[in-house]
Amino acid sequence: MKLVQIVALFLFSCCFLLASAERSPYIIHMDKSFMPKAFSSHHYWYSSVLQTVKSVAQPSNNDDELEPKLIYTYDNAFHGFSALISKSELKALKNSPGFLSAYADGPVTPDTTHTYKFLSLNTATGLWPASEYGKDVIIGVVDTGIWPESPSFKDDGMTEIPARWKGICQAGEEFNSSLCNKKLIGAQYFNEGVRAANPGVNITMNSARDDSGHGTHVASTAAGNYVDGVSFFGYAPGTARGVAPRARVAAYKVLWNEGSFESDALAGIDRAVADGVDILSISLSYRRTDLYENPIAIAGFGAREKGILVCVSAGNRGPNFATLLEGIPWAFVVASGTIDRWFAGTLTLGNGKTLLGWSMFPARAAVRNMPLVYNETLSPCSSRELVAEAPDESIIVCNITDESTDSFSLFRYLRESNVRAAIIISEDTSILRSNSFPHPGVVISPSKARDVIDYASNSDNPRASIDFQQTVVGTEPRAAPALSGSSSRGPGRSYPGILKPDITAPGVLILAAYNPYSIEASIGNVFLASDYTLLSGTSMACPHISGIAALLKAAHPEWTPAAIQSAMMTTANPLDNTKKPIKDMAFDYRVATPLGIGAGHVDPNRALDPGLVYDATVQDYANLVCAMGYTPEQIRTIIRSSYNCSHPSSDLNYPSFIALYEVQENITRLTQRFKRTVTNVGDGAATYKVNVERPRGSSITISPQTLVFKKKYEKQSYTLTIRYRSNSEFVITDGSLTWTEKNGKHTVRSPIVVSPTVNND
Amino acid sequence: MKLVQIVALFLFSCCFLLASAERSPYIIHMDKSFMPKAFSSHHYWYSSVLQTVKSVAQPSNNDDELEPKLIYTYDNAFHGFSALISKSELKALKNSPGFLSAYADGPVTPDTTHTYKFLSLNTATGLWPASEYGKDVIIGVVDTGIWPESPSFKDDGMTEIPARWKGICQAGEEFNSSLCNKKLIGAQYFNEGVRAANPGVNITMNSARDDSGHGTHVASTAAGNYVDGVSFFGYAPGTARGVAPRARVAAYKVLWNEGSFESDALAGIDRAVADGVDILSISLSYRRTDLYENPIAIAGFGAREKGILVCVSAGNRGPNFATLLEGIPWAFVVASGTIDRWFAGTLTLGNGKTLLGWSMFPARAAVRNMPLVYNETLSPCSSRELVAEAPDESIIVCNITDESTDSFSLFRYLRESNVRAAIIISEDTSILRSNSFPHPGVVISPSKARDVIDYASNSDNPRASIDFQQTVVGTEPRAAPALSGSSSRGPGRSYPGILKPDITAPGVLILAAYNPYSIEASIGNVFLASDYTLLSGTSMACPHISGIAALLKAAHPEWTPAAIQSAMMTTANPLDNTKKPIKDMAFDYRVATPLGIGAGHVDPNRALDPGLVYDATVQDYANLVCAMGYTPEQIRTIIRSSYNCSHPSSDLNYPSFIALYEVQENITRLTQRFKRTVTNVGDGAATYKVNVERPRGSSITISPQTLVFKKKYEKQSYTLTIRYRSNSEFVITDGSLTWTEKNGKHTVRSPIVVSPTVNND
Repeated sequence: MKLVQIVALFLFSCCFLLASAERSPYIIHMDKSFMPKAFSSHHYWYSSVLQTVKSVAQPSNNDDELEPKLIYTYDNAFHGFSALISKSELKALKNSPGFLSAYADGPVTPDTTHTYKFLSLNTATGLWPASEYGKDVIIGVVDTGIWPESPSFKDDGMTEIPARWKGICQAGEEFNSSLCNKKLIGAQYFNEGVRAANPGVNITMNSARDDSGHGTHVASTAAGNYVDGVSFFGYAPGTARGVAPRARVAAYKVLWNEGSFESDALAGIDRAVADGVDILSISLSYRRTDLYENPIAIAGFGAREKGILVCVSAGNRGPNFATLLEGIPWAFVVASGTIDRWFAGTLTLGNGKTLLGWSMFPARAAVRNMPLVYNETLSPCSSRELVAEAPDESIIVCNITDESTDSFSLFRYLRESNVRAAIIISEDTSILRSNSFPHPGVVISPSKARDVIDYASNSDNPRASIDFQQTVVGTEPRAAPALSGSSSRGPGRSYPGILKPDITAPGVLILAAYNPYSIEASIGNVFLASDYTLLSGTSMACPHISGIAALLKAAHPEWTPAAIQSAMMTTANPLDNTKKPIKDMAFDYRVATPLGIGAGHVDPNRALDPGLVYDATVQDYANLVCAMGYTPEQIRTIIRSSYNCSHPSSDLNYPSFIALYEVQENITRLTQRFKRTVTNVGDGAATYKVNVERPRGSSITISPQTLVFKKKYEKQSYTLTIRYRSNSEFVITDGSLTWTEKNGKHTVRSPIVVSPTVNND
Repeated sequence: MKLVQIVALFLFSCCFLLASAERSPYIIHMDKSFMPKAFSSHHYWYSSVLQTVKSVAQPSNNDDELEPKLIYTYDNAFHGFSALISKSELKALKNSPGFLSAYADGPVTPDTTHTYKFLSLNTATGLWPASEYGKDVIIGVVDTGIWPESPSFKDDGMTEIPARWKGICQAGEEFNSSLCNKKLIGAQYFNEGVRAANPGVNITMNSARDDSGHGTHVASTAAGNYVDGVSFFGYAPGTARGVAPRARVAAYKVLWNEGSFESDALAGIDRAVADGVDILSISLSYRRTDLYENPIAIAGFGAREKGILVCVSAGNRGPNFATLLEGIPWAFVVASGTIDRWFAGTLTLGNGKTLLGWSMFPARAAVRNMPLVYNETLSPCSSRELVAEAPDESIIVCNITDESTDSFSLFRYLRESNVRAAIIISEDTSILRSNSFPHPGVVISPSKARDVIDYASNSDNPRASIDFQQTVVGTEPRAAPALSGSSSRGPGRSYPGILKPDITAPGVLILAAYNPYSIEASIGNVFLASDYTLLSGTSMACPHISGIAALLKAAHPEWTPAAIQSAMMTTANPLDNTKKPIKDMAFDYRVATPLGIGAGHVDPNRALDPGLVYDATVQDYANLVCAMGYTPEQIRTIIRSSYNCSHPSSDLNYPSFIALYEVQENITRLTQRFKRTVTNVGDGAATYKVNVERPRGSSITISPQTLVFKKKYEKQSYTLTIRYRSNSEFVITDGSLTWTEKNGKHTVRSPIVVSPTVNND
């Protein structure tokens, strides 16, 4: 479905709109260098432009419809405005001086604390103490708003707000402007876009208050304060804290129950840049593949220009090839991995044997020494009647490996019975990873089930107990991290020439703050809520990277966003907690590729001291945009008139490598040369030697093979040449290049991918 | 039902017993001064006595039945043994030298942590720091055993066990002898009595492990260690701690799922005395009214002789007159009061109005902005069909003030519906105080309900929200303490001449540790367990007094049990937290009398420094027993040959007064004179003046009216004479006598009761 159709759908869904159906919302990018000096601000200029292009009004009894309507003007992350205009007005606009491009406003969809331990963050050494826990760094979260009363946003231990902060605490529905504090320093909301698309719409929570919970989760993951004694109904209990517990949060609500529009997201990002955020954390997805149409790409360029690092989620469209739609080269794109924690019930059989099963039953069910019933007739548990045949107050064994029933139905049959608990035999990971578990039970695999069935079948009086609310940490039952199946995979459709995603961070069953009133679990037909909830997705991975970026920014205030990103990427870990390559859940735990995990899993303490960084200026990004084959207007939509295209180059100084080949029927041949420059950010002189793991079927040449730095901040360059040859039509191979310090501790690793090109259909 | 019948019931309930039905368990009290010197121990003597009396055996194929069987021998709290004997053997026994008395073994039945705050215990001043939190005092808990793994019995912060301790950590079923530590210093179990009464019985948990939870609750209330983050399903959250967090616990399990026998309780108390406990906490009830048959009275006398303070629960047979069965003069008998805490759901109507309703729904139900349904036809909620008529996902108003349905049925109808929550209008305090609340809802009174019904009836789109797990502390909705309705009332049937109960302590909805596997709540048809639970009863009040006694013992090691008891009684508070007299819940919150509350509600910090104490020696108690009108054997059963009856006196030097009159048809006249001696335990010279609140219809004369003490530990005596005259048949009146220090801080208060005598029927 095209975006225009979606907008149309919104329009037609509301009968009040028929009269104004001729005008619809557009985002218009302007070249501000064309602004006549007579205008004291961009706002007047854009208003004047809009007046100039207005069509002759049709007769109407509604004054609002007589004129095109300005929704927002933008001046920080990029230049332009959004407006309700008609097709003919759009046509006129295109002839206005300074016009760059215009796109129909489109919808946005959102893509979730033990993780600090999994990330080895600790109070004794490394990034936390070095950064003073992210002190004074401001993270702007563009999302569904914020739940300001969450204990994660208390400001205990926070110092005064820096004078440079220009943001406000905007009052609104159920949101008093006094709700901000030294932790939550700003809260603003942007819904002119959704209002313009749906005139007369009733906004159900017309303020920065997060009536979803998503934005609250993201913000508290990145920079939540310490909160003791939290859990998800007894699972994952402990002290919650954000990755950067002393960083500050500014919330920009741009997603609404009534619809989510790019114009609103742009307004939020534009304001965040003006307010003075240091990091932008954006866990949203757009379906735009062209960068010059993508508001995060456009506004993100402007943000990076102002020294702001932009983290975005890779999206949850995996596991297939090239499901990563955006892949903005100047944003830090984050994939989602598992952590070393799972949630269990401990099953103890009457013979003393114990085994762990997956469970997220949200309470301490009393299941102690109950009769255990295994019976082949009943065990499919495929109807209410079958389940009800089990004796009251018993534990029933349900074998649903043959898919005789689904978990939703099974839980309903259990609810309607007097069975005390169920042992569910299944290989279905959708049950295994679900946090909807409305009846007491555990899920065990068929191989584990043998002991249970043997005991239940051969004992005179088989009995069992189950202890719920067990949280297990370690390498069992699976090594961690593993790449989440749903995490979007590269190459990025926007621009496959830069390897995306960049990095992996924790994103599966992440505990963080939430709207305390939303339904998060159920027992029988009773729905339960929780202050803290477990969510999964790249939306949860992104704020981990935002938080670590905040820590690095605090520890190294002189680093550019590119340097911060490079430090994290070149120190990322390609191995899991069993020291084996990170696996991919979606492909039966085969080894994951950089198209899934990027450079690997973030390792914050190593990123503090990366040795070398691949830096890049905004002009370097502009040179890349100039080489993308766009029209001059499309290019200026992104880079505006601030940069020129005198040196277009697709060879961005990036800490990863991707070589793309066209899939051909016979032999594929490819040769690609990359040039890179690394800056020594170690303490003094250092010598690095190269080490290459070549992708299968490739040869790699590096020149020179040794880099000698005499002092800190010195730069050295090298070239990497890939020669690839294959007989197969579609093969993705990968390897890596690592610069290792002689007599030193630093290793600087970059993934190398050889991949077929993306066919945009 | 008489005890012999109960024993018979046990015997006949088991067919295996018919052959040995002729022998049944008895407890035999002996005068140890008769023990021939030839016996090296009491055990051999009692064995020999039993051999001497054995009947000629009937022919039987069971060797066990040939002889009478010794169950326990006792030598610490009292002298004697228990045994399975026949009627003829009993007869022979009665003629043995040293025989005092014998009673058929009979059954026993069993009668929490914001309370430290309610008791004003604090770390800055008063009893806690003065006693070092009860350091090194040992509390023996005679009950259902102990759950040793409870975090309340961790020994963090505990010092080494004193060398004087002689108790053991007895291994048994699911109980390793290494489970004791520096907090739980002893654990033993006693079930020979229940086994003797039920030969071949299978004891389900044959160890000191508390498979009930009652003993664990009592022990942790008295002396549990600090445990953070506990609650009852979110209610009463906080840090649990016992009243004496640094005192030690020794557990004696004498109550069994298979039956509870006096012989076992006696064995536990006897062992506790031998082991070296300082305080005995006994939350059990016997149905014995005669003190010479009551094992706690008998063993309690022996314990007090060894300087051990014995606290017992008053029982839960209230609210009627003279429902307190035991009333042992030498035990500290404890009534149960409410605390200043209740559990609520906050109901918020769509018009912004909020009200608190009673709720203990055991989870955070999601009930936010749901349709509110009030409809006169549905509101009785008296059938499944009626409740099901309410729309799905709504909040239904159920008015059950007319008792159209009971709460149990109502919750079932709700479970079977898709109604999200209920607002239950009721005045029924059984719902109001219940902790069984299996469906989301709140209980509100008819007066509060008017606002809800008005809003629901007159709004176009009535909506409401409920927030659960609310814990409210303060004087609303009722002042605290109030006397629990079920707390047994004096006069004590055993001996009405000493006012019982002695004192009131917290006993309603007390949070303490429990068997973590027992069912403590439910949601729909799912049963839930909790490490900590809320229980109510005098069983919960008693360990509060035991704990405070431990604190006083640590602060004043020189004080006798009588002095400790006096200090608590004369400083007890007759007023509630609104400075008005304590009320009685059972009688519509009329003012409670000392027959319900004793001297008032314990005030631990004042008890630390009472000014004067009413002390008593064991001989004083013996003199009282001698004046009770018992036979010499009955007297010696209690006081043994250690004491003589040369000065019988019913005027025990006790810190309270009760004058009893015979109910007559016309005019009742009574004159009673009491003599008391007080000991100055203040720091030096002091002068006290008397102040009397006379019971209605009485005149009171005190002589002298001023007591002058020149130094510490000096004693002074006074007399109190009551003259009472009434035209009514049955009137209980009360007043008080208070000695107030001139130019000083001490006040020493004693309740005075004029009461009809008890008719034992």
